[in-house]
Amino acid sequence: MRAVDVIMKKRDGGELSREEIAVIVNGYVSGEVPEYQVSAWLMAVFFRGMSFRETADLTDLMLRSGSSMNLSGIAGPFVDKHSTGGVGDKVSLILAPIVAACGVKVPMMSGRALGHTGGTLDKLESIPGYTTRLDEQRFREYIERDGFAMTGQTDAIVPADKKLYSLRDVTATVESVPLITASILSKKVAEGAEALVFDVKSGPGAFMKTVADAERLASSLVKTGQAMGKRIVGVITDMTEPLGNKVGNFLEVEESIDCLRGTGPTDLMEVTLRLSAWMIVAGGAIVAGGLAADVASATKRCEEAVASGKAWDLFKRNVKSQGGDFEKMMALYGRYRSKHVRELRSPASGFIQSIDAFRIGLAGVYLGVGRNKTSDPVSPDVGFVFERKKGSAVNKGDLVATVYGKDAASLDAAWELVSGALSVGAAKPADSPLIIKEITAL
Amino acid sequence: MRAVDVIMKKRDGGELSREEIAVIVNGYVSGEVPEYQVSAWLMAVFFRGMSFRETADLTDLMLRSGSSMNLSGIAGPFVDKHSTGGVGDKVSLILAPIVAACGVKVPMMSGRALGHTGGTLDKLESIPGYTTRLDEQRFREYIERDGFAMTGQTDAIVPADKKLYSLRDVTATVESVPLITASILSKKVAEGAEALVFDVKSGPGAFMKTVADAERLASSLVKTGQAMGKRIVGVITDMTEPLGNKVGNFLEVEESIDCLRGTGPTDLMEVTLRLSAWMIVAGGAIVAGGLAADVASATKRCEEAVASGKAWDLFKRNVKSQGGDFEKMMALYGRYRSKHVRELRSPASGFIQSIDAFRIGLAGVYLGVGRNKTSDPVSPDVGFVFERKKGSAVNKGDLVATVYGKDAASLDAAWELVSGALSVGAAKPADSPLIIKEITAL
Repeated sequence: MRAVDVIMKKRDGGELSREEIAVIVNGYVSGEVPEYQVSAWLMAVFFRGMSFRETADLTDLMLRSGSSMNLSGIAGPFVDKHSTGGVGDKVSLILAPIVAACGVKVPMMSGRALGHTGGTLDKLESIPGYTTRLDEQRFREYIERDGFAMTGQTDAIVPADKKLYSLRDVTATVESVPLITASILSKKVAEGAEALVFDVKSGPGAFMKTVADAERLASSLVKTGQAMGKRIVGVITDMTEPLGNKVGNFLEVEESIDCLRGTGPTDLMEVTLRLSAWMIVAGGAIVAGGLAADVASATKRCEEAVASGKAWDLFKRNVKSQGGDFEKMMALYGRYRSKHVRELRSPASGFIQSIDAFRIGLAGVYLGVGRNKTSDPVSPDVGFVFERKKGSAVNKGDLVATVYGKDAASLDAAWELVSGALSVGAAKPADSPLIIKEITAL
Repeated sequence: MRAVDVIMKKRDGGELSREEIAVIVNGYVSGEVPEYQVSAWLMAVFFRGMSFRETADLTDLMLRSGSSMNLSGIAGPFVDKHSTGGVGDKVSLILAPIVAACGVKVPMMSGRALGHTGGTLDKLESIPGYTTRLDEQRFREYIERDGFAMTGQTDAIVPADKKLYSLRDVTATVESVPLITASILSKKVAEGAEALVFDVKSGPGAFMKTVADAERLASSLVKTGQAMGKRIVGVITDMTEPLGNKVGNFLEVEESIDCLRGTGPTDLMEVTLRLSAWMIVAGGAIVAGGLAADVASATKRCEEAVASGKAWDLFKRNVKSQGGDFEKMMALYGRYRSKHVRELRSPASGFIQSIDAFRIGLAGVYLGVGRNKTSDPVSPDVGFVFERKKGSAVNKGDLVATVYGKDAASLDAAWELVSGALSVGAAKPADSPLIIKEITAL
């Protein structure tokens, strides 16, 4: 079987066998199939799509290109959450200790900020001393002791994804549901999770701009994950406005602390509790006896984990386990701010119609929250503190947000995006749900 | 403008500007744009197509990647014919001297056999001593003196096409009408032709299997050529059966000699005269006063060129100009046959329903007529001599064809295809036209 025949078959709309997909994936990893054939194949997949069976085979072949985390010997269940990326999305930091407090182990492998979306690793690394580079032994140790651990992807995990993703990035083949599915799922399965909850963001601030697109991806993740023998929940959530009131790196650590101490903003807590509850339900489907009867009772357990202080205690333990200076972190709380600051004030009286997450995310790249290239550095002490969000009544001149940039020039560069993100109108805008749709395969 | 943005624009169905196409084509030739981006772009073009304007810009950019033949100082008009390739298609060898005899200069740049289709250069090189490697000076000299010259493409002609074609070949992006159009047209314009007649073959033995596909390509060639300021005729001809009674290299030279001496088979002469006539009409559209009132009178002039011996005389002169040993060629006529021979006899009585050109072409690769890789050698003295074709009444055991192979093993390997190419049935099959459709832009 030659690579060109596999490309032609996909180009003409055929369903590829596992062996045919292996010609491309294994051939690419081994160097036998050149990049120009892989990129032509990726573009053919972009146009023709893949069946769930093909996507599952692709995911599995990618997974087998590297090693997986070995969690054997630790009591499960192992459940993780993955978000497709948004603005102000610090859910992982809050959810992991909550879920761990409820008896589910969370082997969390996260990513970094890229483009307009933030990254969990960058947020965690804004905690003085905190390291996200854990070897397998420490990853296992912390999960066993603290119920969760937060790490980055090592080079040994799914090397095929690293090669394929960098090729997709320069050949306009990123936006393909089966390719996105295989990229996400292969890494999540490699980290050792038995069940997965996907937060598929939808809206201007998300990768998937429409609910229909988000549903297509959620459905693909659920069905493909199921075909690979995993228990999967896909939750489509709104990403029109930034999630919570703080966007940044340490600023989002602060807001996570608020949530774990019971004083977090409503929108952020709603999404976090729902995703956490599904993780409990999914984990409960694995262990004998279950953990919660349904998502409602699982939500209650999560709320208790916050109210009792147990989740906050586990967060504290994790910070210490991963080298973070807890006292220094708490000393920086409310004070870790760049001196380059500017205020966003309402240009009119009325109601805030929206704060556009996409523009805020893009402005964040200038400020130092995020980055355009994976090699760019980010700043811990920059970002946005919102005083008001969609639906708030404002008078002209009212403070809407305080904005911190890495230097004066970054604020200048970001300002058109920042002020363009805010729209104020006469009528109070209608409420829209945060949790849009849920797809389960448990 | 980055290459990835051009790929994305085409992927999403946009019409590319000349500058955007130049990013890919010029970048590829200069080495700035890597092959993996070019192949992704080619696959996007495969799916999205190109407008005639885009195709004309692509053609022109490819053309400008190299040098063109300079025919200035020679009296024109310069008209060439190009066939999309078939089996037994030796029209170029007959048509060039006929058209030259009528006062049109033919600067012919031909190709080699590949896959099931034959190549003019391989046929000409079966004439002892004949060379198809002419430098520009000799190409000019022979055209001026003999009215036509037959050469291969030099490295300086459209290097972008060489790079693009070899990449298309291994990335399943050959079968794209705009890419085929640009590849063909750029080379034909580079050879110095002012007007072009395209023989777009249609049927099992052609690249385009259906009339609809052939029409799409013919229409693209005509409209794109017109957009480049050339006078163009597209003639769709049937390629269900091999053209003429001989398929091979020297065997096709023999049949060309027959045609030029007035004893050629009817089907081959019909196609040759029609294409020749259109070249006279197209050339006449360029020079003051014209050369023929219409295609009917042009056909008459072509018939006279054969009947008068003028075309045969020009063929003779060309053979000598290009180093061929005319006497040796004539001595080999009827005798230049491999000793490895086998007869194809009718398996039943009735009428020949068809002789499948595609199977004959593929069998020819085994025999040594053609090749699968451009680096493979071909044999001069192999191929097919058909005694009967479609519509002939046969008795069981009648000789249908004599088949010559380079060795006994090649005949064994070819035989399943050879015998499978012949079908005999009870009823006389209906006639079908050889000239299917004509599209003109003069």
